[in-house]
Amino acid sequence: MTTAPAMASRPQGPATVRVELGERSYDIIIGRGVIEGAGEEIARRLPGARLAVVTDQTVADRHLKHLTQNLTAAGIDFVTIVVPPGESSKSFPVLEQVLDQVLAARIERRDAILAFGGGVVGDLAGFASGVALRGMHLIQVPTTLLAQVDSSVGGKTGINTQRGKNLVGVFQQPDLVLADAGILDSLPPRTFNAGYAEVVKYGLIGDAGFYDWLEGNWRAIAAGWPEREHAIEVSCRAKAATVAADERESGARALLNFGHTFGHALEAATGYSDRLVHGEAVAIGMVLAHEFSVRLGLAPAADTARLVAHLREVGLPTRIAAIPGGVGRDAEGLVALMAQDKKVSRGKLTFILTRGIGEAFIAPDIQADDVTVFMKDHMAG
Amino acid sequence: MTTAPAMASRPQGPATVRVELGERSYDIIIGRGVIEGAGEEIARRLPGARLAVVTDQTVADRHLKHLTQNLTAAGIDFVTIVVPPGESSKSFPVLEQVLDQVLAARIERRDAILAFGGGVVGDLAGFASGVALRGMHLIQVPTTLLAQVDSSVGGKTGINTQRGKNLVGVFQQPDLVLADAGILDSLPPRTFNAGYAEVVKYGLIGDAGFYDWLEGNWRAIAAGWPEREHAIEVSCRAKAATVAADERESGARALLNFGHTFGHALEAATGYSDRLVHGEAVAIGMVLAHEFSVRLGLAPAADTARLVAHLREVGLPTRIAAIPGGVGRDAEGLVALMAQDKKVSRGKLTFILTRGIGEAFIAPDIQADDVTVFMKDHMAG
Repeated sequence: MTTAPAMASRPQGPATVRVELGERSYDIIIGRGVIEGAGEEIARRLPGARLAVVTDQTVADRHLKHLTQNLTAAGIDFVTIVVPPGESSKSFPVLEQVLDQVLAARIERRDAILAFGGGVVGDLAGFASGVALRGMHLIQVPTTLLAQVDSSVGGKTGINTQRGKNLVGVFQQPDLVLADAGILDSLPPRTFNAGYAEVVKYGLIGDAGFYDWLEGNWRAIAAGWPEREHAIEVSCRAKAATVAADERESGARALLNFGHTFGHALEAATGYSDRLVHGEAVAIGMVLAHEFSVRLGLAPAADTARLVAHLREVGLPTRIAAIPGGVGRDAEGLVALMAQDKKVSRGKLTFILTRGIGEAFIAPDIQADDVTVFMKDHMAG
Repeated sequence: MTTAPAMASRPQGPATVRVELGERSYDIIIGRGVIEGAGEEIARRLPGARLAVVTDQTVADRHLKHLTQNLTAAGIDFVTIVVPPGESSKSFPVLEQVLDQVLAARIERRDAILAFGGGVVGDLAGFASGVALRGMHLIQVPTTLLAQVDSSVGGKTGINTQRGKNLVGVFQQPDLVLADAGILDSLPPRTFNAGYAEVVKYGLIGDAGFYDWLEGNWRAIAAGWPEREHAIEVSCRAKAATVAADERESGARALLNFGHTFGHALEAATGYSDRLVHGEAVAIGMVLAHEFSVRLGLAPAADTARLVAHLREVGLPTRIAAIPGGVGRDAEGLVALMAQDKKVSRGKLTFILTRGIGEAFIAPDIQADDVTVFMKDHMAG
């Protein structure tokens, strides 16, 4: 699969990507300023529905009035539920509080929860929409690049427990995703870059042409030129196609975890702290997946070098040694964390490996010992 | 729809009722002693799966060894999670504890939770199976008549919050239901009768022939003769057909709520206490639904009299005045509780009414005032 490597002209208005899931199909509308039409879109798709808008304090301070004025203008009745920013809101206590406020507002099954925020808000509010009254409608209005190209699409929702991240949740597809490229203008560069790592992932998994294009256009994406919408659209199309083929991750959807088994272990080792955010962990994880694939004789070393060069240029980390404060574990300790990841199947480790840029594949039978030896060398190097 | 009114001979072995839900279809196996084959059935349907057996202390004391010996004999690896008996276990804290134990046991997505108990355990463990790792397998082994003919079939799971009962949950269809008629022998008569009210409901909703048969055979059902299996089978067939037609209660499934809008209000008014268990509330609620239908000129009064006579003979309550300690509310107060029920749609009250025994229908536009006047008269009479 390849993508047109260059854009001939500025795009005309928003793009729509359809996620084909039978009666659960939905649209992702992508463009600069699409949030201005949120009320109208929602009223058209869910006529008469009331909304519970779930957001975090940071997004509320910056963007909430913008959204709610638009909802009011469209005649939509809503309540607002504000949670604390940060990963700690993906917890049972905050879930309970959100559900209590949803139920207190007498929201009904045909109404909707609107998740207005990054991945944390989307995962939390999405889960709430899946279990309130045994399931109500969900609208995702993601406000980070990571959420726009990854977490708001595909229906994975959930919270963390003391046993690990995202171990409790549901598959809950939204009814609509509104990805406003303009809302990303106010993101701190580090947050933007963390999302960009997931954009790169789509190229690495199955679209070498898109990866080529990213190398030449990443500055325009970061600057908020129309290339940004194009990158979001291509990413969403890739995710939509994968999710349509395998909604519940019994097969090909696992490809989307490229770099994630390594990355999750690094996040766990750093206590899910601000020292290493998810996208940064994925960036390092994707490099590790390439390096390990080279080690197994599967992929050319040149592709790893190319990936490392691109991530460095953008400002993303590429090695475990780059994590401030270190990971506090040796190779065995990190591999033990990988084995705790829920993508373990019958005790064998499943990794997403690659034959080169654009050619990732699922390798279900990787021996832990091989990974440990590889990690030792990486950490020594 | 009518059912053969009499049984020509003793049934030969267990009966199987198929719930047709496409790729989520499953079997309900009904018979005396089917629990003896639990391990074999599970190993055949989910080869290699580990189990988390969730049960309550009462069922564990009486029946757990019986089940686990059988699982062990079939070579199935399992852990046991015991929760306190009673409705208070349908709560967030107990859900969290169950999930923590499931995750601590390193249960994987292709493994299963086995719910071994009555409606509380089934709803709680079913919900846990729907959200642990975003959904794993579920096996229902119901140990009360209520759970065998109602709550274990059809996929409704959930917990209670301070805002009401079953307001948080998921639709999670089991992979298998094992309804052992023999395990009901040890039920206290009051618990058995509460389940019997739901059996009567299937006759009242859409099967006048079955209702006739129940009037003549209820003693054999209570005594544990083969008529019991027949009653469970007919009930499960009725529920299976309704669920197959409308899994998520967007239409005809609401018929199963016959007597329940009244009944839920009575349960709420008595604080979900032992003064009035769910099946007793449904019994009174079904009488109220008949009386209200007569009042609206929809149904013959003779059918109400016939229903009252049957429920009295069995030992079930038929009037609000029969509730020990009373309901502590006037008619307005009870109607307000009905309006809080989640089956409210856009503020209008939906009731399941009837044109006579076997002829229930959905009435979505009932005025609260009409219900209040009716309730006043019932409570005065």
